[in-house]
Amino acid sequence: MKNNLPTRRERVLGPRMTTFYREPVEIVRGEGVRLWDAAGREYLDAYNNVPHVGHGHPRVVEAIAAQAATLNTHTRYLHEGIVDYAERLTATLGDGLDVLTMVCTGSEANDIALRMAWAATGKTGLIGTDATYHGNTHLVSQFSAGRTPIGGRVDWVRRVPAPDSLRPVGGSVEGQAEAFAAEVARAIDELEAAGHGFAALILDPFFANEGFPDLPPGFLAPTQDVVRAAGGLIIADEVQPGFGRTGGHFWGHERIGLTPDIVTMGKPMGNGYPVAGVVTRAEIVEAFRRDFGYFNTFAGTPVAAAAASAVLDVIADEGLQARAAEVGGHLLAGLRALDHARIADVRGAGLFLGVEFTEPGGLAPAPEFTAEVVERMRERGVLVHRIGRGGNILKIRPPMVFSRADAERLGTVLAGVLEGMD
Amino acid sequence: MKNNLPTRRERVLGPRMTTFYREPVEIVRGEGVRLWDAAGREYLDAYNNVPHVGHGHPRVVEAIAAQAATLNTHTRYLHEGIVDYAERLTATLGDGLDVLTMVCTGSEANDIALRMAWAATGKTGLIGTDATYHGNTHLVSQFSAGRTPIGGRVDWVRRVPAPDSLRPVGGSVEGQAEAFAAEVARAIDELEAAGHGFAALILDPFFANEGFPDLPPGFLAPTQDVVRAAGGLIIADEVQPGFGRTGGHFWGHERIGLTPDIVTMGKPMGNGYPVAGVVTRAEIVEAFRRDFGYFNTFAGTPVAAAAASAVLDVIADEGLQARAAEVGGHLLAGLRALDHARIADVRGAGLFLGVEFTEPGGLAPAPEFTAEVVERMRERGVLVHRIGRGGNILKIRPPMVFSRADAERLGTVLAGVLEGMD
Repeated sequence: MKNNLPTRRERVLGPRMTTFYREPVEIVRGEGVRLWDAAGREYLDAYNNVPHVGHGHPRVVEAIAAQAATLNTHTRYLHEGIVDYAERLTATLGDGLDVLTMVCTGSEANDIALRMAWAATGKTGLIGTDATYHGNTHLVSQFSAGRTPIGGRVDWVRRVPAPDSLRPVGGSVEGQAEAFAAEVARAIDELEAAGHGFAALILDPFFANEGFPDLPPGFLAPTQDVVRAAGGLIIADEVQPGFGRTGGHFWGHERIGLTPDIVTMGKPMGNGYPVAGVVTRAEIVEAFRRDFGYFNTFAGTPVAAAAASAVLDVIADEGLQARAAEVGGHLLAGLRALDHARIADVRGAGLFLGVEFTEPGGLAPAPEFTAEVVERMRERGVLVHRIGRGGNILKIRPPMVFSRADAERLGTVLAGVLEGMD
Repeated sequence: MKNNLPTRRERVLGPRMTTFYREPVEIVRGEGVRLWDAAGREYLDAYNNVPHVGHGHPRVVEAIAAQAATLNTHTRYLHEGIVDYAERLTATLGDGLDVLTMVCTGSEANDIALRMAWAATGKTGLIGTDATYHGNTHLVSQFSAGRTPIGGRVDWVRRVPAPDSLRPVGGSVEGQAEAFAAEVARAIDELEAAGHGFAALILDPFFANEGFPDLPPGFLAPTQDVVRAAGGLIIADEVQPGFGRTGGHFWGHERIGLTPDIVTMGKPMGNGYPVAGVVTRAEIVEAFRRDFGYFNTFAGTPVAAAAASAVLDVIADEGLQARAAEVGGHLLAGLRALDHARIADVRGAGLFLGVEFTEPGGLAPAPEFTAEVVERMRERGVLVHRIGRGGNILKIRPPMVFSRADAERLGTVLAGVLEGMD
């Protein structure tokens, strides 16, 4: 690696900066679903969802370049770009979700969504799942499933067991929806008993970090009833499933049949340009801004709006949601045809698919095996990663311009890797 | 205004979105220090610091466009761009400040800087001034001088009286440095008595939001001694004074003679591209990352590094720090020559200048008068704004490519406006 990059990186970016892969990859160029490293080696990118419409999509690049050359101020001046974009984006949502607050990152989106719920309800109690991630600010890191957040866990955030395909909450797949709702009801009772009251339940309606369990439409209906009855709000974190990723629906909450009060979004929104957002009803925004003079310098600028708008254009013009359904369905069928003693489940939707690996014949997660699969696929030129509470679910989540040929290449490589492992 | 923009904006961006000026300006194009509205009217921008090297600077635009077309991934792959940038940026700082953590916004920078102090000290008590602003996340909004943050004020954040040019802490200009340090010492005692312990004092070393009082070099020396003796850290928020803005120094803490443990930066860093950062010592980063697996998707990407790197190039190649000193000095002299009964003080450094207006003959702030000056200057084609606890300080903080001719135009317009007001 030229110029001793890992050593320089460690020195100037500091210790414990994570990298992917045993031998970190130095990527220097990208195009569509392809990445090239510094040695000129090509990789199939089957992991990155931020370049939603493909690495370096010329329409997004041109939109950014043209607007950056023209003007890039902030929302305290009027600009038509953000208004046009907000109208287009909110038109994809129903149920009175018609006011957009633009921010820069998914973390910022969730950080203010939670406070919108506080302002609207006058309560502070919050609930998330115990295997989730909603971002990295002080507030949202309270929901991180991993290490205790710096400063400790607060009493007004409660965590409920995440739904699971193979190890259902409550013990049975049939009863999981009611059992999950009962856990939420119990957490609400605890928050109320502790004097915090209940403000909101935040969840990714696809449960991406939880390992995207296979859940039927309507799964969250009992939970929704419990939340509404308690006077709380539902925040749908659409950072991962949004923008057509799951193929059948533009938003993850539509797919599962959830009616959120607040929707947050991020990663794919600007194809890599730092843009994220919160969409909710006018009265919730009113409550928030009545209590807090929110302004975000880099958010909702003409360039942010141009990038995000170009992404919507490309999704529509290239039919990427339908393509996710079609190619994802083809890939899913291919993954389901794989035969290996450690494959416990193959699941997902659209271009968000996973293979869960366990110890043979049981449900004990096999994280080392899964990590080895990830490494060997990288050695064979296919970039994927893993996720889930047990770190044992292969995570396949490519740019939406993934083709059937790409799907076949991935399937062939994975089959080859599995052939050599037991 | 075409297409009824204000009404559409209110509907889709929600109520209480602030705008500048009684009649909000719809800006459609910018170049250097000039902005044009939708009707084609030209304005001199004497306010915006985000376009640090000028609106639409071609070198920054080209750097963003070229890198966005080539690659824009994240820091879990190796990339030379962020390492090169981090080496260049940390070279501008001394005192062991040699590790950069890139983030997207100044709010994110301060949100993690405070938690770095928690991790490094094992304490939670924080101190800021009572007339400041450090951002908009849940954590950093605890420092906002305005309304109570949503969720209420926490007990582990204490606020000390901000230094002031005309109304010094402790009653005398000569004693203000010691009096400010004594206030910090008192707040530390309170935090320790309350069981929180003391982690950090956060301040903008230029005290920009406080109204950038005229303070001598060494002003913060007694405060620094108090903080060090108590085992706490100093966080310098350089979002406003950094990157040569004050002319004589590249960083605000150099100007006042402060040695911070952590430096945060934002707005001007990418000339409008959403990029911000935290620079500190390796052991503080180590403590933070040992306790918290921090990762930020949009931060430190190849495009963010390219934009930020181009800004450093332009500052150097166009001599913008020296220019800020030279043009700023010329402008300051011009402002000091103005004669009006309500001008109580003219101050600042480099291209960050202010005129403080009070009721004639006294120190009572004159916010309505100041607001009227801002509006009338806008009517005459010069964009400025106001700041300070009393909202009575004209804030002049243009892009760094401001020229002597621009300074003269501003001075002439301000003189003309003041002539018609009493």
